[in-house]
Amino acid sequence: MRPSPQRRLLQAQILTAAADLFRQRGYRAATLDALARTVGVSKATVYGHFRSKEEILFAIFDRTMALYEARLREIRRGGGGPAEQLRRVVQHHVRAVIAERSFLTVFFGEEANLPRELRRAITRRKARYDRSVEAIVQRGVRQGVFVTGSPRLTVFALLGMSNWVHKWYDPAGAWSAEAVADALMAFAERGYLRTPARRRWEIGAQLDRVERDLRAIRPLLRTR
Amino acid sequence: MRPSPQRRLLQAQILTAAADLFRQRGYRAATLDALARTVGVSKATVYGHFRSKEEILFAIFDRTMALYEARLREIRRGGGGPAEQLRRVVQHHVRAVIAERSFLTVFFGEEANLPRELRRAITRRKARYDRSVEAIVQRGVRQGVFVTGSPRLTVFALLGMSNWVHKWYDPAGAWSAEAVADALMAFAERGYLRTPARRRWEIGAQLDRVERDLRAIRPLLRTR
Repeated sequence: MRPSPQRRLLQAQILTAAADLFRQRGYRAATLDALARTVGVSKATVYGHFRSKEEILFAIFDRTMALYEARLREIRRGGGGPAEQLRRVVQHHVRAVIAERSFLTVFFGEEANLPRELRRAITRRKARYDRSVEAIVQRGVRQGVFVTGSPRLTVFALLGMSNWVHKWYDPAGAWSAEAVADALMAFAERGYLRTPARRRWEIGAQLDRVERDLRAIRPLLRTR
Repeated sequence: MRPSPQRRLLQAQILTAAADLFRQRGYRAATLDALARTVGVSKATVYGHFRSKEEILFAIFDRTMALYEARLREIRRGGGGPAEQLRRVVQHHVRAVIAERSFLTVFFGEEANLPRELRRAITRRKARYDRSVEAIVQRGVRQGVFVTGSPRLTVFALLGMSNWVHKWYDPAGAWSAEAVADALMAFAERGYLRTPARRRWEIGAQLDRVERDLRAIRPLLRTR
């Protein structure tokens, strides 16, 4: 039997309220009483949807993982080169940590409170997700579009700087999620170091030599 | 009266045990009983050093901040260009999150549990630290060594990818802290995108034209 739309809506409401509560008070300190009060339902109603606080925690992890997995599948199927796909991955991470702040704060901070088996399941899904992003980086390396000593570390660096946004982003500040994603991508794609001075100097010196030779040659051509 | 070396040693021991405990069980769920048991002292002895669990939490934050502040001061006084200084900052962050895993996990995860006033004090110190790193980036931009649309965001991206290491680093894995720091720096300095193909094509095409001209000129010179 499929749950009614109404039932699913209430379940989503409970989950969102739980994420907010866990973020504010920490998972261990939060109670189902407080949760029921926030949603405005009885504790029995909460139990009608989730058997335990642990099950709610897992539902938060599951929903978050599912969101990321679905978006990554879309991106990989959506075509475009590896640079374009990676840009979309970072955009999604930045948007998600800003729009789903409570879910992501719980996701990043409360993993230790998941029951052992469920924690393992999440660890496996995260590893699969990381490998899937890594496959994009590897394709970029094969196509000669990306340069990296370690595709795996490139993934960790990219996702690290994107996920870290939840630590410093101020919704009242001047930056939109899009502006943050764009700036992070400019950083990730080009780095902050100007083309190494030596190489610039070499090319410059080489062109100077060529131009000097050409200038010396010009009068000779005119005299012919 | 300065505390005796023995007293300071025990205090450090309690703090380290507390950081381990808070990381494993979460700050709220951890008890001073469990802490005293781990250190092998009485709860009264713990109270001889810290008045409350909150005071221990703050001491963990204070010690962590102090470590970062001291190292950053050293780096800024130690000379070297901005690129070199930024490299040292990232190295320190990576080393610290690996070597002081418990302290940093508590530092990144338990800020919400600090009493309001102390949390504000830590927020101010973190903001000062970030600005101090930003000053290095700005110096790099002024010297023409760095390129960035936003020095502030470059700082967040750099520290984000470095701090994120505590989420994925496996001490039993193949990477040393140094290898991780080097790889992150290569990523941060150069980015992963190959020098834009268009620019390479332009320079190549330009040199081709010049060389073609010179080749055409060569026989003319020989005939003189």
